[in-house]
Amino acid sequence: MNAIKDAVHDYVEVDGVVQDLLDTAAMQRLRYVKQLSTVRLVYPSASHTRFEHSLGVYHLARQALTHLGVEGARAEAVRAAALLHDVGHGPYGHQTERIIERHLGRHHDDVHHLFEDSELAAVLESHGLAPEVVANLIAGEGKLGQLVSGDLDVDRMDYLVRDAHHTGVPYGTVDPGRLVRVLRFVDDALVLEEGNVATAESLLVARALMNATVYRHHVSRIAGSMLERASETLLEETDLTAERFARMTDADLLSALRECQPTTDFAARLAERRLYKRAAWAELEAVPEWLLEADHDEVRELEDDVADRADVDSRSVVVDCPGRPSMPETETRVVVGGSVRRLHEQSPLVQGLQAAQRAQWRLGVYAPEADLEAVERAVSSVLALE
Amino acid sequence: MNAIKDAVHDYVEVDGVVQDLLDTAAMQRLRYVKQLSTVRLVYPSASHTRFEHSLGVYHLARQALTHLGVEGARAEAVRAAALLHDVGHGPYGHQTERIIERHLGRHHDDVHHLFEDSELAAVLESHGLAPEVVANLIAGEGKLGQLVSGDLDVDRMDYLVRDAHHTGVPYGTVDPGRLVRVLRFVDDALVLEEGNVATAESLLVARALMNATVYRHHVSRIAGSMLERASETLLEETDLTAERFARMTDADLLSALRECQPTTDFAARLAERRLYKRAAWAELEAVPEWLLEADHDEVRELEDDVADRADVDSRSVVVDCPGRPSMPETETRVVVGGSVRRLHEQSPLVQGLQAAQRAQWRLGVYAPEADLEAVERAVSSVLALE
Amino acid sequence: MNAIKDAVHDYVEVDGVVQDLLDTAAMQRLRYVKQLSTVRLVYPSASHTRFEHSLGVYHLARQALTHLGVEGARAEAVRAAALLHDVGHGPYGHQTERIIERHLGRHHDDVHHLFEDSELAAVLESHGLAPEVVANLIAGEGKLGQLVSGDLDVDRMDYLVRDAHHTGVPYGTVDPGRLVRVLRFVDDALVLEEGNVATAESLLVARALMNATVYRHHVSRIAGSMLERASETLLEETDLTAERFARMTDADLLSALRECQPTTDFAARLAERRLYKRAAWAELEAVPEWLLEADHDEVRELEDDVADRADVDSRSVVVDCPGRPSMPETETRVVVGGSVRRLHEQSPLVQGLQAAQRAQWRLGVYAPEADLEAVERAVSSVLALE
Amino acid sequence: MNAIKDAVHDYVEVDGVVQDLLDTAAMQRLRYVKQLSTVRLVYPSASHTRFEHSLGVYHLARQALTHLGVEGARAEAVRAAALLHDVGHGPYGHQTERIIERHLGRHHDDVHHLFEDSELAAVLESHGLAPEVVANLIAGEGKLGQLVSGDLDVDRMDYLVRDAHHTGVPYGTVDPGRLVRVLRFVDDALVLEEGNVATAESLLVARALMNATVYRHHVSRIAGSMLERASETLLEETDLTAERFARMTDADLLSALRECQPTTDFAARLAERRLYKRAAWAELEAVPEWLLEADHDEVRELEDDVADRADVDSRSVVVDCPGRPSMPETETRVVVGGSVRRLHEQSPLVQGLQAAQRAQWRLGVYAPEADLEAVERAVSSVLALE
Repeated sequence: MNAIKDAVHDYVEVDGVVQDLLDTAAMQRLRYVKQLSTVRLVYPSASHTRFEHSLGVYHLARQALTHLGVEGARAEAVRAAALLHDVGHGPYGHQTERIIERHLGRHHDDVHHLFEDSELAAVLESHGLAPEVVANLIAGEGKLGQLVSGDLDVDRMDYLVRDAHHTGVPYGTVDPGRLVRVLRFVDDALVLEEGNVATAESLLVARALMNATVYRHHVSRIAGSMLERASETLLEETDLTAERFARMTDADLLSALRECQPTTDFAARLAERRLYKRAAWAELEAVPEWLLEADHDEVRELEDDVADRADVDSRSVVVDCPGRPSMPETETRVVVGGSVRRLHEQSPLVQGLQAAQRAQWRLGVYAPEADLEAVERAVSSVLALE
Repeated sequence: MNAIKDAVHDYVEVDGVVQDLLDTAAMQRLRYVKQLSTVRLVYPSASHTRFEHSLGVYHLARQALTHLGVEGARAEAVRAAALLHDVGHGPYGHQTERIIERHLGRHHDDVHHLFEDSELAAVLESHGLAPEVVANLIAGEGKLGQLVSGDLDVDRMDYLVRDAHHTGVPYGTVDPGRLVRVLRFVDDALVLEEGNVATAESLLVARALMNATVYRHHVSRIAGSMLERASETLLEETDLTAERFARMTDADLLSALRECQPTTDFAARLAERRLYKRAAWAELEAVPEWLLEADHDEVRELEDDVADRADVDSRSVVVDCPGRPSMPETETRVVVGGSVRRLHEQSPLVQGLQAAQRAQWRLGVYAPEADLEAVERAVSSVLALE
Repeated sequence: MNAIKDAVHDYVEVDGVVQDLLDTAAMQRLRYVKQLSTVRLVYPSASHTRFEHSLGVYHLARQALTHLGVEGARAEAVRAAALLHDVGHGPYGHQTERIIERHLGRHHDDVHHLFEDSELAAVLESHGLAPEVVANLIAGEGKLGQLVSGDLDVDRMDYLVRDAHHTGVPYGTVDPGRLVRVLRFVDDALVLEEGNVATAESLLVARALMNATVYRHHVSRIAGSMLERASETLLEETDLTAERFARMTDADLLSALRECQPTTDFAARLAERRLYKRAAWAELEAVPEWLLEADHDEVRELEDDVADRADVDSRSVVVDCPGRPSMPETETRVVVGGSVRRLHEQSPLVQGLQAAQRAQWRLGVYAPEADLEAVERAVSSVLALE
Repeated sequence: MNAIKDAVHDYVEVDGVVQDLLDTAAMQRLRYVKQLSTVRLVYPSASHTRFEHSLGVYHLARQALTHLGVEGARAEAVRAAALLHDVGHGPYGHQTERIIERHLGRHHDDVHHLFEDSELAAVLESHGLAPEVVANLIAGEGKLGQLVSGDLDVDRMDYLVRDAHHTGVPYGTVDPGRLVRVLRFVDDALVLEEGNVATAESLLVARALMNATVYRHHVSRIAGSMLERASETLLEETDLTAERFARMTDADLLSALRECQPTTDFAARLAERRLYKRAAWAELEAVPEWLLEADHDEVRELEDDVADRADVDSRSVVVDCPGRPSMPETETRVVVGGSVRRLHEQSPLVQGLQAAQRAQWRLGVYAPEADLEAVERAVSSVLALE
């Protein structure tokens, strides 16, 4: 039994299939993909990686399985899935998620393609595990898949405390030691046992406060949007395939952007933190309905419109329109008075959090400092923002 | 300049009047009054004292004053008030608050009586501070009094992080370093500057989660109610004056209870953690309106009624009816879009928290294990609880 | 399985005999005995108790046993012994150790007398454990006793990190998670497996730095010596038996001192932190040989001599002469190159630490501020100190 | 006044020249140079950067200057130097230090060349600071230079706690809050004031334990040596200049190694953590004297000799011979009994630490797994190791 020192969970014990999976190229690549992409431009201590996070997720899965009394090959498959749950992420993680979905039609937790005839598949099979089964668990399918991806998954339990530890922001502090102890299966649904409404609420609350303070900090959103925009250009202007793009590391992407003439300016701006500024920062009610439903092409058209009207280069306008606010954890199941209830039925806090999330939602439009005033006027008139 | 090592704020620098106040008997007494009274029967690590907390509150006041640019004698008075803000507490802090209010007609933050002709007054005067002024600050009066006692006081900023550190429960983690930096005065009202809605929310959220998990844990409430009930008996059955009672330490009180025949059983039960159990644990809607408005005598009558009907000793029934839920911090002022708003106007989360607080509210009725069933039946019938 | 939240080890799982032992009066008493006695007069956050520490020691024993593969009744006995290892401590722990040894002829880890016909014995027997066996483990006897009391015991692993957490002093940070993983038995001796010389050194180093900074801080030593001196007087002047004395809590002792006329002054000084000052603070080489070998009566005679010569009350002179420096952990066994070696054979650091300990050693003589100069002169001349 | 959240020091306040220096390309580059180079192959959480560390060093310098009472332009120059102290580091920090010294004849703290006619110089001058003066401070020159680089510099105070925080290894925990408070100048020498022998010892002790456990972990040394060897080849085989090499980021270097045919294997092995193994791991006494004095060419010859004799490719043998052990901090000055003494005169611990350092010293010779046995035999015979 090998034990790896972790800054969050102290010692993570690895053995069996997990020990062998750690040595695969697909897992080692996650050492070069940061957990919080552009957040570290705001919180300098946040340089932690998806490799470290994956170890943490595996560790919590292992603990949860022990407390749930799940053993044998089924447990081993879940542990493997927990460790591998992020191998499908592209460079800069969530920041390139939409590009990859658009080009390749798959979400980061769809990893079946990575498991066919690969080193990963060979390792899994050598331990008697079917790659297909592990891929399904990563996609959150089946009873045990809920542990890996779902309202009460160990992914979120790890990232909230880990991001708090590495940013220094104290809001992400859920209690994983308690969470892994109070999970239960009732009719194949994963629930929190009696007496844990506050435990369930803490997960939502931590995420809401971390969203406001860390994950959706405007500086990080600006850098992320610039990166996304530059990545699209890269895919358009070079012969880089989307499949190759999806397997890059953070540094690979920055380096490719630097070497592609139409994106060198973006690359230099990101490397030296000379970011665009906010030309618009609009609340949900101020944004026209059509924009909330707009697809990628429509957003690009809007960017071109605004650029035209402002008489600036089209790369000088970046529109950052997040999806409509949603909060899937409100469906979390908790046992109250002996029967299973959804958290939103039980906790009046949930509606408050949903409303707070809507209140925090912002449309961003970003531009270089030199073009800021022109773009500000143009976007106001195009979108009829006040 | 002397610097005291603190487990939460690292080094607390003391000088001037604060250095001299530390050495007074009134402050040293706080070394013997625990911050969380009976909570440590649930969370064994929570043995920290009001002395330690008072140092922390002073430290945050000092920092806030620096960031607010308040200097000179006015600042020194606030620092003194911050350090002294808890000298009015009786033994076991909040647990004996209602007894002291009933007998002496004053709240723990009314400390004028302690400041007359006392060692404290002498120290304050020797530094050119009027005891009256400091006492008023402790009562939260005036512009600067808001820092010591109010919606945005440094008291709460300290206790939330300190209680989290010492219990090990991760929910109390507000960000004092940020809070002391973003305080502002607008028209003499203490507010949080622009961009701090989440900062304000974190204070409420932390308290809500700590309430549910720590401060109002049922085991701590049972022990606290037993202590309160025994203290009343002590005051009735002995010639101990309420003034003397109010100046006791935790250990003084336990010792007095042990030596007073009618309360020895309570004392032994508390010392050995053989606590009463819950004969009732009722939600807000289930409780008759009159009970929510009942005064001390009416509650005692109810206890006697239930004891009669259950045919047990009247000391075998302890009714623990908290006041109606309230959440004063919802009035916290934050600057949003350049104008000062109340948090509840701005944050939909606040209503959620208020509703959650109502949902968590419980009436408790406690009895020794041997009498539990009888009391359970009696209380159900007397209060018509379902 | 019950899990108790702990500020240091997160969750401590309790079941079996340990669950039942927790509820005994002997264990509950440890809630009222502080881990660091008078240290909290220097480090205000250090109010933690031997109850909390005992839970931590049990927790580490449990982990170590798992990693060592020890199971069944033998493991249960060790877990019980770990939890109970401090029940023999008197009020203020180590501070009254010498008094109890002198009067009752037993060390705090000799608990056989507490285990005869007692609630503890009944609980142990109800779980099929022989009290005698558990008492022997607490005394460090036998192969498994080394885990409870010895060079590599879990006691020290817990207190070093716990005292660091609660004082805020960062020097006590050994790595218990690693230590419990690298323990091995070789020929019935407890050793650290290959590659752990630095792990073993860290235990000594942490203790050396914590000694210098925390455990032997002169303010704590002064208060402790006053307490010891007052306790002796209490036993002489009242009919309190040594057996009863040994079972007191910290508060019981303070209260008894307050009520005994010849010690009221000591009690008030301790309660209000008006401590004696140093009339002498001498290095090891400056101290006459006979004093290092002196027994209690000889030290009392010295105090009287000095008081006579200084013309002050004999209670105004307190001599605090620690034993000769010793460092038993230097015998710690580590595996190096496949064979077991003693740490002092392997690590040149050990000699350095021993020398440092000798260099830090101090004889203290303390007196009230008013008598300080007279006592200073008297002690210099009696002991011929320079 | 801007405040940046830091995971170690909470809030770091930036203003004046420091605010402007943060935005320079030279400082932003440090976001892409890891603090612990290859250590993260052992401790996955250790992904923190020299940018984050530089902020921490600046923060401690700022605090130390305040406590020392240094103000005005001299203080501003020291703050700038503290922030910039690492801009001279090449990719992977210390790992490429010797290469850069060999090729460019300068140490990483010689930054005069970076300060001529550069963005950095312009920013410094715009705040009235002479670049030359700041460069001298970084080199540790002059009275105030001791704060930036010397036995008691703030560099080490930051990295020990930061590396502990991010690796999770608890041994690096010095007390920066105390250190910055007890610094004094005596006759222009930086010293620790009276009563701080243990404080000074803690710095050495922390470094000794971190060396053994983290900084010189054999896995990290192997990866580092492979990287160094590959970097030399890169400089020999391509037209990359040493100046350009010295300005690379970690990712730039990995990418260059990948694209240079003779180093692609090294690059892939590092990226996928398929490292060489130890063919030799010899103690100081076992190593021939000449090897300890050998220059780079002689070490390369040795590698070729061993490769010849083992009949393997010359890139399959990597010799890692650290310099003779040294411990400059033993010269640290502390005030004892009113006069300034060197720590090694005062603390017997120092000799223990020096001896321990010699005992931990190891020569490493590394080879791919396939060649391991052959290289092991060859190196034993060439070096006459037992």
